Amino acid sequence: MSATEHEAFMRQALDLARRAWGATHPNPMVGAVIVEEGRVVAEGFHEQDGGAHAERLALLNRGKMPRPGATLYVTLEPCSTHGRTGACTDAIIASGIKRVVVGATDPNPGHSGHGFEVLRAAGVEVITGVLERECADLNLIFNHWVTHGPLIAAKVAATLDGKLACRTGDSRWITNERSRADVHRWRRLFPGIAVGAMTILKDNPRLTARRAGEAEWCPWRFVFDGLLRTVVDKNLPAVFTDEFRHRTIVVTTPHGGLGYVRKLREMGITVWTFDSPTQRVPFADFRKKCAEERISGVFVEGGAQLISELVRARQLDYLFAYHAPIILADDKAKTIFSGLRPERIEHALRLTDMRHEVFDGDMLMHGRMVYPEKLMVDETAFGAR
Amino acid sequence: MSATEHEAFMRQALDLARRAWGATHPNPMVGAVIVEEGRVVAEGFHEQDGGAHAERLALLNRGKMPRPGATLYVTLEPCSTHGRTGACTDAIIASGIKRVVVGATDPNPGHSGHGFEVLRAAGVEVITGVLERECADLNLIFNHWVTHGPLIAAKVAATLDGKLACRTGDSRWITNERSRADVHRWRRLFPGIAVGAMTILKDNPRLTARRAGEAEWCPWRFVFDGLLRTVVDKNLPAVFTDEFRHRTIVVTTPHGGLGYVRKLREMGITVWTFDSPTQRVPFADFRKKCAEERISGVFVEGGAQLISELVRARQLDYLFAYHAPIILADDKAKTIFSGLRPERIEHALRLTDMRHEVFDGDMLMHGRMVYPEKLMVDETAFGAR
Repeated sequence: MSATEHEAFMRQALDLARRAWGATHPNPMVGAVIVEEGRVVAEGFHEQDGGAHAERLALLNRGKMPRPGATLYVTLEPCSTHGRTGACTDAIIASGIKRVVVGATDPNPGHSGHGFEVLRAAGVEVITGVLERECADLNLIFNHWVTHGPLIAAKVAATLDGKLACRTGDSRWITNERSRADVHRWRRLFPGIAVGAMTILKDNPRLTARRAGEAEWCPWRFVFDGLLRTVVDKNLPAVFTDEFRHRTIVVTTPHGGLGYVRKLREMGITVWTFDSPTQRVPFADFRKKCAEERISGVFVEGGAQLISELVRARQLDYLFAYHAPIILADDKAKTIFSGLRPERIEHALRLTDMRHEVFDGDMLMHGRMVYPEKLMVDETAFGAR
Repeated sequence: MSATEHEAFMRQALDLARRAWGATHPNPMVGAVIVEEGRVVAEGFHEQDGGAHAERLALLNRGKMPRPGATLYVTLEPCSTHGRTGACTDAIIASGIKRVVVGATDPNPGHSGHGFEVLRAAGVEVITGVLERECADLNLIFNHWVTHGPLIAAKVAATLDGKLACRTGDSRWITNERSRADVHRWRRLFPGIAVGAMTILKDNPRLTARRAGEAEWCPWRFVFDGLLRTVVDKNLPAVFTDEFRHRTIVVTTPHGGLGYVRKLREMGITVWTFDSPTQRVPFADFRKKCAEERISGVFVEGGAQLISELVRARQLDYLFAYHAPIILADDKAKTIFSGLRPERIEHALRLTDMRHEVFDGDMLMHGRMVYPEKLMVDETAFGAR
């Protein structure tokens, strides 16, 4: 079979995997198809944590022993350890399938490549790396989760000259409709979304994923509010009062005041309080708590100050940056990031493993943050808080 | 013949056209192939202003009458007016070719579509719009020249957060090697390059196009220097002393001083002086002079102040913006643009007809500038000069 045919079947497996977009945390999305004589005869995808694995479902869906010459396509290296559902390599070997084509390798360093070895030792031909990048990209969050814990990502939507808003604060709209729809794709992917208190007070967002043809979806909604300023006003924001308020988690410090904490809890809202000498939430502790709660990824949507503080604390792992073909040309307009003062380009922050997407005139760059050895912090930039 | 086959042959014609990259000004680049029985039997491309047109060369190169059923592919609508080289439509009709496949339509409103009409009236089948966008993009400069005069374009190379340099001025390197090589592609395309005096004094650039496998090429090199500050120092910059100095044009005002003008002219350098109440060169007059000299496009490489002044004067037509996956996060770092103060997003500058290209991690957005009805200028931003 040609590389093009392998890719065509792998693409079908990828499409299957994506049906569980955002639904498998902290597990990966995985899709599988069984091909006999050039035709897909069975499909499977991992639907949710605790559910059957894609390969196993495809084999089950075949309903009988695959024919000699059958090939299994699977987007991720089959597991070879006996987890809750048994090793998929065992199921494959038992099925009699003699050829397996795989997209991405298991990112877990303890397992990586082991599935291939087990299969090969049992006489199964294994072809690896078909659409590897697409298959690996699919599990941006999982890949980080199994190696480093929760993925803390941020999104910014800026002008070509790096501004988030006019000097007046006006920012509607910098990015186009297609870009804004794309943000909902990521909201649906990440198990948690986070914003700062000022964003809640200024924009009163719902922070749900609203996608054409799908029911509104509410991820965990984190509100970073060290002083509980969002609870002060009689008119409470939507995230405290709407039908998804049990999905809201306020992240605060002891400086917020116990009365407000009680008020939130009475409304059914979760409050995470972290000790802190200042009104700023200690991000490392937040990350640890997410790990304990098995929340594998958080998508931080703003404001600029929260994201800049995350960067300053070296706690931002990943960045999505949308750029619109708009120019403000105003030094007093709001910038994406602030708070550092690098004196040479090599002391700047960098992104790596870049991905690029175009949405009509807009474009999205996203990649992993790389911090320089020494962050040159501008202490004056955070003076106000 | 299928659309895919049409595209394959048009792509060959495009490749031919590109052999004259930057060499045809103010004429367009055009490529043509003649196909008989599924094979290319003759090729042609327009080499330079005054030379034969691509279609005519392809017919000449055929060396005999094309066979019945032959098809001519040409990237641009054949001319139907009797210029210096005679109408190409006449040559096509005389050749007996009965089918012509065209990429882009002639952008000149006076001619647009007329070539198709003439051919069709003579019984030639005409298929239009094959790879239209690529064929039209090829002649970015020509398309503007025939409709609006010289294309004044600028290039900026910025961080993801819209900075050109650290607060210290360090900017080496923000963009990667592939992006910087791409700049030389545009330098080779544009008949003129321009920089401000400060860029000459600070960087002492050669402003030539240096591309792998090609001889160094020197376009017209414009130095915007209203006060002739670049002539003051005993050590003169490279653009005044190197082997291409006859390709340097200093653009100045009467505030520059006649002594310096004489000194430049004695070195073989051209000086364009434009009346101006200030030390700033009046860009509209510069544009007019370029039109007179048939310089159809100018690529402005900086500095930021020159480009911002062009924007403020509504004289920038086109922008190339490279973004690197680097973050400075410093409000005191140098920004791409300044001098405006829009209070609402709808008062911002916009780019349209966007094109996007990826160079490893970097990306290039380019498009045509669109000015709002009213530019809100920040008078304080230009106070220093």
